[in-house]
Amino acid sequence: MSTPPRRAARGGRRPGDSGTREAIAAAAREHFGQSGYDGTTVRAIAATAGVNPALVLYFYGSKQQLFVDVMRMPFDVAEAVERLVAGDRATIGRRLAAFVLGALDDPQARNVFLGRVRAAAADRDAAATLRGLITGELVGPLVHRLGVDRPELRAGLVSAALFGHVMTRWVVEIDAVVGMTADETLETLGAVLHLQLTGPLGGSADPPDG
Amino acid sequence: MSTPPRRAARGGRRPGDSGTREAIAAAAREHFGQSGYDGTTVRAIAATAGVNPALVLYFYGSKQQLFVDVMRMPFDVAEAVERLVAGDRATIGRRLAAFVLGALDDPQARNVFLGRVRAAAADRDAAATLRGLITGELVGPLVHRLGVDRPELRAGLVSAALFGHVMTRWVVEIDAVVGMTADETLETLGAVLHLQLTGPLGGSADPPDG
Repeated sequence: MSTPPRRAARGGRRPGDSGTREAIAAAAREHFGQSGYDGTTVRAIAATAGVNPALVLYFYGSKQQLFVDVMRMPFDVAEAVERLVAGDRATIGRRLAAFVLGALDDPQARNVFLGRVRAAAADRDAAATLRGLITGELVGPLVHRLGVDRPELRAGLVSAALFGHVMTRWVVEIDAVVGMTADETLETLGAVLHLQLTGPLGGSADPPDG
Repeated sequence: MSTPPRRAARGGRRPGDSGTREAIAAAAREHFGQSGYDGTTVRAIAATAGVNPALVLYFYGSKQQLFVDVMRMPFDVAEAVERLVAGDRATIGRRLAAFVLGALDDPQARNVFLGRVRAAAADRDAAATLRGLITGELVGPLVHRLGVDRPELRAGLVSAALFGHVMTRWVVEIDAVVGMTADETLETLGAVLHLQLTGPLGGSADPPDG
C-alpha cells in the first residue's frame, strides 16, 4: 500500500486553525483514493494532514463518517447532466467522455471516484452506495433525459465503459492505457460511449464483412 | 461483508482426509471471490471448509500463499487463446465474449477472477499481478496472435471492456446489467469487443450522421 508523504509535522495544527478541517478532508480523499477504505487508517490521514489523530475524530466523529462526509463529487452532478443533454446529440459519446476524463484529471474528483470504486470492490454496502450514485444521479438521469430506447440497459453499458476505463487506467494500470495520449483516450472512450448511447442493441454484434 | 454458510461442523476433517486440501481451496476461492483478500480470514475459510484454522496453515503455510496457490484460472489460458485465434476473424468479438462469459458462469473461474479484481482494487502488488495475467497471458497474446494494428492499445481497450462487464455485473451489480439475458450480454459485450479488436482507432469517434 503506498503512503502519501507527510505534509507537516504532527501536532502542528490545532482545532482553532482555519483550514484544518479541509486539510483533513484532502488528506482523507488522498488515502481513500489510493488505498481504499479498509487500507486507510485515521492515523495515516492525520499524519498526512499534520494533525493529531484525535483531531480527525473531533471533526468527523469516525472513519466511516469521514468517508461519507468527504467522498462527494466536487461538482454539481445534476448540472453536468443538464449540460450534456443540452448539447449536440451527434457528439454525445465524445462529450460524455470529455466530461468524465476532465473530472478524472482533477485530483479531488479522481480520488473520490477511485476511493468509491476501491471501497465497492471490498464491501457490499459501499457497492450499493456507488450503484445508487451511478444509476440514480449520473448515468441513469443522463440516458433518461436523452430519450434513447432501452435507457436502463444503455445506462448499464455506459457504466461498464466508464468502470472499464477507470479500472484499466487507474487501478490495474495497464501500460497501453496509461500511455495513451489525451486525444487517444478521448477518441477511444468516446467511440464506446457513442456505441452504447446511440448504437443498435441486441441485434447482430458483428457486421457481415467482419 | 457477506459470509458463505458453514458447510460442516468445525473439526470434522483431519489432515489424512482425502479431499480436505481441495475443500480448503474451494472455501478459500469462495471467500476471496466474495470479500477480496483483506476481507477474508483464515478462520472464515476454515469454518466454511469445516476444518480447524491450523489445518489451513498446515496445508498452505499462510493466507498469502493460500491466495497464490488457489487463485489460478481453472483452464489452460494459452490453449484458450489458440482456439480463439483459430476461428473466424469476422466473429472474434462475439467468440471472445462467449469464452469470457462462459468462464464467468463457472463459479470457480468467477471466484478466481473476482477475487483478483477485488484484491487489485485494494493493493498495488495484487494489481501488478493481475496486470501481468491480462497483458502477459490472456488479452496481450490474443491481440498479438490476431495480427491487428496497434496490438498493445487494442489489448488495453479489450481489457477495459472486460473489466467494465465484471465490475458492473459482479461487483457494483448495476440492476440493468445483472438483469440482462444471456443473449443480450453476449451481443452487447461482443459488439464492444468487436469494435476494440477490429474497429478504427484514433479517428473520428462519431459518424457524421450521429
